[in-house]
Amino acid sequence: MKRLEESTLVIVGLGLMGGSFALALRRCRARPVIIGIDRDAGTCAEAVARGVVDLSGTDLAAVSRAEAVILATPVRSILQLLPQVGALVSPGTLLMDLGSTKREVAEAMVRLPGHVEPIGGHPMCGKETAGLSAAVADLFQDSAFALCKLARTHPETVAQAESLVRALGARPIFVDPERHDRIVAATSHLPFALATTLMTTIIPIAASDELVGALSAGGLRDTSRVAASETSMMLDVLLTNSDLVADLLSSYSARLAELADLIRQRDESALRILLQAAAEKRRELFPK
Amino acid sequence: MKRLEESTLVIVGLGLMGGSFALALRRCRARPVIIGIDRDAGTCAEAVARGVVDLSGTDLAAVSRAEAVILATPVRSILQLLPQVGALVSPGTLLMDLGSTKREVAEAMVRLPGHVEPIGGHPMCGKETAGLSAAVADLFQDSAFALCKLARTHPETVAQAESLVRALGARPIFVDPERHDRIVAATSHLPFALATTLMTTIIPIAASDELVGALSAGGLRDTSRVAASETSMMLDVLLTNSDLVADLLSSYSARLAELADLIRQRDESALRILLQAAAEKRRELFPK
Repeated sequence: MKRLEESTLVIVGLGLMGGSFALALRRCRARPVIIGIDRDAGTCAEAVARGVVDLSGTDLAAVSRAEAVILATPVRSILQLLPQVGALVSPGTLLMDLGSTKREVAEAMVRLPGHVEPIGGHPMCGKETAGLSAAVADLFQDSAFALCKLARTHPETVAQAESLVRALGARPIFVDPERHDRIVAATSHLPFALATTLMTTIIPIAASDELVGALSAGGLRDTSRVAASETSMMLDVLLTNSDLVADLLSSYSARLAELADLIRQRDESALRILLQAAAEKRRELFPK
Repeated sequence: MKRLEESTLVIVGLGLMGGSFALALRRCRARPVIIGIDRDAGTCAEAVARGVVDLSGTDLAAVSRAEAVILATPVRSILQLLPQVGALVSPGTLLMDLGSTKREVAEAMVRLPGHVEPIGGHPMCGKETAGLSAAVADLFQDSAFALCKLARTHPETVAQAESLVRALGARPIFVDPERHDRIVAATSHLPFALATTLMTTIIPIAASDELVGALSAGGLRDTSRVAASETSMMLDVLLTNSDLVADLLSSYSARLAELADLIRQRDESALRILLQAAAEKRRELFPK
């Protein structure tokens, strides 16, 4: 890969992530030519009209012109795209994905032709609104950005990926795919499962009492926020991390049953200890 | 009760709620003399120094001078305070609490001497930070404010309570105590129980992997936010709404087990339907 400002970068998938990736790079003084590929021609037109990308189209063949390719689609699309893109790219092309889970992606990257330079990526940011219209230049600013290098990834490629991540304003964090998936099962997929189940529990209650909406405050709003995440993205996340997420839900359910027992028994002293520990840990994890 | 601007109002409990109540009223052009009572002398001194209240002290006897008394402590303290305050106040005094649950409060209000004018209140707002230092004048602005009148509450008292709520900038919503407690079990206590259990589940994972904090994004932050709520307040909430909260946790657990099964079985079509319905309902309940 040439220096960033001299290279051509192709982003496949012009949604929230891909669009924001392009917008973030366009702020840099030294920046590559950015080509956006999306299966939806309307999205391509919008991306050019808004100045998100320099060039746009629906044909994946454009990746052959790139020094770097970014796959910014849901995870299972990434798994389908990897061999297709791998067959098209020029030798030495950096191929990074932005998928939310990394084990299956890393396995697929291992099988790529030897002339491809793959590395897994996962920006630890997002919004519950999806699509190019939600893309913003500062989405990655000051966020963690997980990078999963493979045994085959050349040190030079790793350095290029790292500098690309820094150009977005994000902090690169190197982690192996197994550890990544285990952590995000807890920090991202578990919260999503809880928020979704909160909504499925609330739906019949809200349907039977019209004051439910009026008598809800920030608690329901914040605890349920990620339930509004894009279904196609989260479906792929759950299906490619199902073992770890299901195990974690079992562990969570056991703890929730313990809490429910303490509440039903009105066990004040045990409840106080449990609530206090949770509150302290929350303040420690997210200091003001 | 005299007109608001001519009356004396005593607030018992100068924490986030009591302090914000005083600050909100002080913005009004026509406002009562505000006396703050707190068991902590340091808090009393701080309230006067910051100009939150006109007068302050630790002795509950001051309620005898008031046309209106607001009990702004955790629910079980309210239950203890009600008969004490009821024995001290002058005939016709409006006595409103700001407790987060209303059934036990309403029962205790029924037993008050006949010359007291009780009405239950619950402002549907809050923060995960507690204490007088967190109090702000606009805490109630545009929030719902549940009001639970009793059979004994005179229409004039109800109108006074309603105008007091409007003076805070809040929207009064009349609801009976049973219905109130059933709704907030779903919209407030359930989210708190989920956030707390999310933290107790995360604690051992975070302890065993130092990247957990670094690789967490907005999902964990928002879903866990209310777990940082003040323990003494939430303990009282759970202990005075334990039956409804425990029942709701059973219902939630059953739905979470269903989701876990679908994830473990990788049942794509059933998962898609469930996720989509939850996402749509979330967007409907909290439109942009």
